[in-house]
Amino acid sequence: MRVNAYAAPAAGQPLAPTVIERREVGSNDVLIQIEYAGICHSDIHTVNGDWGPQPFPVVPGHEIVGVVTEVGADVSRHRVGDRVGVGCMVNSCGECANCRACDEQYCLKGMVGTYAATDRDGTTTHGGYSTHVVVDSDYVLSVPDGIDPVAAAPLLCAGITTYAPLRHWNAGPGKKVAIVGLGGLGHMGVKIAHALGAEVTVLSQSLKKQEDGLRLGADDYYATSDPSTFEQLAGRFDLIVNTVSAGIDLDAYLGLLAVDGTLVNVGAPAEPLSLNVFSLIGGRRSFAGSMIGGIALTQEMLDFCAQHGIGAEVEVIAADQINQAYERVLASDVRYRFVIDTTTL
Amino acid sequence: MRVNAYAAPAAGQPLAPTVIERREVGSNDVLIQIEYAGICHSDIHTVNGDWGPQPFPVVPGHEIVGVVTEVGADVSRHRVGDRVGVGCMVNSCGECANCRACDEQYCLKGMVGTYAATDRDGTTTHGGYSTHVVVDSDYVLSVPDGIDPVAAAPLLCAGITTYAPLRHWNAGPGKKVAIVGLGGLGHMGVKIAHALGAEVTVLSQSLKKQEDGLRLGADDYYATSDPSTFEQLAGRFDLIVNTVSAGIDLDAYLGLLAVDGTLVNVGAPAEPLSLNVFSLIGGRRSFAGSMIGGIALTQEMLDFCAQHGIGAEVEVIAADQINQAYERVLASDVRYRFVIDTTTL
Repeated sequence: MRVNAYAAPAAGQPLAPTVIERREVGSNDVLIQIEYAGICHSDIHTVNGDWGPQPFPVVPGHEIVGVVTEVGADVSRHRVGDRVGVGCMVNSCGECANCRACDEQYCLKGMVGTYAATDRDGTTTHGGYSTHVVVDSDYVLSVPDGIDPVAAAPLLCAGITTYAPLRHWNAGPGKKVAIVGLGGLGHMGVKIAHALGAEVTVLSQSLKKQEDGLRLGADDYYATSDPSTFEQLAGRFDLIVNTVSAGIDLDAYLGLLAVDGTLVNVGAPAEPLSLNVFSLIGGRRSFAGSMIGGIALTQEMLDFCAQHGIGAEVEVIAADQINQAYERVLASDVRYRFVIDTTTL
Repeated sequence: MRVNAYAAPAAGQPLAPTVIERREVGSNDVLIQIEYAGICHSDIHTVNGDWGPQPFPVVPGHEIVGVVTEVGADVSRHRVGDRVGVGCMVNSCGECANCRACDEQYCLKGMVGTYAATDRDGTTTHGGYSTHVVVDSDYVLSVPDGIDPVAAAPLLCAGITTYAPLRHWNAGPGKKVAIVGLGGLGHMGVKIAHALGAEVTVLSQSLKKQEDGLRLGADDYYATSDPSTFEQLAGRFDLIVNTVSAGIDLDAYLGLLAVDGTLVNVGAPAEPLSLNVFSLIGGRRSFAGSMIGGIALTQEMLDFCAQHGIGAEVEVIAADQINQAYERVLASDVRYRFVIDTTTL
C-alpha cells in the first residue's frame, strides 16, 4: 500500500512530499487513516541529525490521531470506525520484565519508535506525517469521544510525557508542583497537574506567557531570569517537572525542593549536566528522569484528559507549512503545538 | 565543668590533649560520661579545613557512647546509669516543618552539629573526643543492652547514615541492593541491608576485601576496576547506596539500576559530579542524596541493630593514637572503624 507522506530526504534538509510503502495489515494490525499529526521538538532533532545518524528518508510524527479503516483477523481492541491514537512507540518485545510491568517504553530489547526505528520485522518505521499507518493493535490507543481529535494528537507525546511523572511522583491535592518551561510539554504539564489537584507554579524564563500560564491552570508564575525567584521559592516544591531540553543550573532548581522533593527531567540535554551532591543530600532530594509512558498509562491519560476536558492548545497547519513550522518551533514561536491536518498531504 | 579532651588547635595541625569547659546541666540536659567515640572520616575533613574555616580548637567526635551521670529536672527520657549515645546533631529548632516531621537533620534553621557548630545558646559545640558531654536529652539516644557499647559507637553516624536510605528506599526481601565502597559506612550498609532481608552486592574497587564482604552479609562482590562488572550487572539493582566520597562515573553506576531504581549518595564529593540525563530518563531512574537521619529513626536503627546482633567492626585505640589513626583512615587502612577508648583521655 503506497501512501502520501512528508519526509526529510537527508539530515538538515527541508521536508518534502513523497510516497511511502505501508505494510499489509497483519492479523494483529490495524490500518489507520490519519487525521492529525502533531509536531514535536523531537521530530526536528531527529531530522537535523542532532541525535546521530538516521535511516533517511525520515517521515517524522509520533502524535497521531486517526480513524481505523481496517483490522486484522485477531484484533479485538479496536474496530473499523474507531478514533484512535498512536504515540512514540509502535512495538516492543512484550516479554521482558519491563514490558510485563506495562513499562514498554523501557523494553529491555528496546522499544520500537514510531519513526526512524527498525521494527521487529526488520523494516524501518515511518511516522505520522502521512495519510495512513499500519500499527500493531496493542500499541494503538483509543481516543475517547470527549476530546477534540485535533487537540488529542499532542497528548500522545506531550501529554503522556508530562502525565507519567506527575502520576508517578504523586502530583495531587496538597502537593506543590512546578513546571519548568511553558512550551508544548510544559503547557500540558500545567493543565494535567492542575486537573490532578496539585498547586501549580510555572517557572519560565520570562513573564511573557504569564497570562496564558494562569489561564491554563497555574496558581503562580515566576521568571527564572530573576535571581530573587530562587530565594523566594527556596524549599517550596514537592515535585518539579523540567520540560526544558537545554541545560539548566541544577543546583539552583534543586534548592527549590522541599525535603524528599524530586526534580524530574523529561527532556534530555545533549550535554552532561553537573550538580553538587550537597544539593541532594541537604534534603533527601532526588534528580530523576522519565520517558513517555507505557501503553496502559497512555490510555489512562487519554481517559483522564477526556474526563477533565483537557486537550492541547494547537495551531493547525497544512502539510506545505511544515518547514516553516519547524523554524517557528525553534524560535519558540508557537502556542503551544503545531498539528498537521494530514488531509492536506 | 572542665573535662579532658583531644582537640585540633588549628587547620591541619595534629590533635593534642586539652581541657575544655562543658556547660552546666540544664533542666532538659543530661551529662554523659563518655566511654567510646568513633573516628569518622568527617572528623578528618573538618580538622583539615576541607569543609571551610572552623572555630578552632575543634574537639571532633560524633559517634559517642557513654553512661548518664546526671540529668536535669525536666528530663524523663533518660536516667542516671542509662547507656546512651549521641550522634551527629545535638540540637535543632524543634518547630519547623522538618523538625516536626522527625527530620531534625534537615531543620530549616539548621541543625546543630555535635562539634564545631554554634549551639542555640551561642556557644561552640565540642564532640566526643572527651570524657564528658552535656546534651539536650531530646538528642540523646538509648543504647539497648543487646549491643556491645564499643561496637555501638559507630552506629551513631555510620549506622544511621546507611540505615536511613536503606529504610527510605525500602531495602528488604526481594530487593537487590548494592553498596558502593566497603569502608566504615559501607560495612554497616552491608550488615544492615542484609538484616533487612535484601539481596546485597558490594561494589568495591578491588576484590581485596571480598572475604570480609561476604562474611558481613553480602551475597555478591564485584570489583569496579573491572569494566566487565558494569556489563554483567547492567540494569540489576533496585537501590545503590554510594558510600564513597570521591567522584564516581555516575552514568556507569546509573546503568546498573533497574527501572525505577535509585542511586543514593551518602557521601558528598567536594567537586560537582556530572551525568548524562539519558542515564536517568532511560529507566525512570533517580539520583538522590541522604544525610544521617532523624532522632526517632536513629533510635529505631539502634533497636534494629540490637535485635539483629549488629554492631560495627572496630579497632579500639587509646587517645594518643588518634593522629596515627587519622593517617590510617586516609590510607583506607582500617577494618572498619577506629573507636577511641575515652578513659585514656
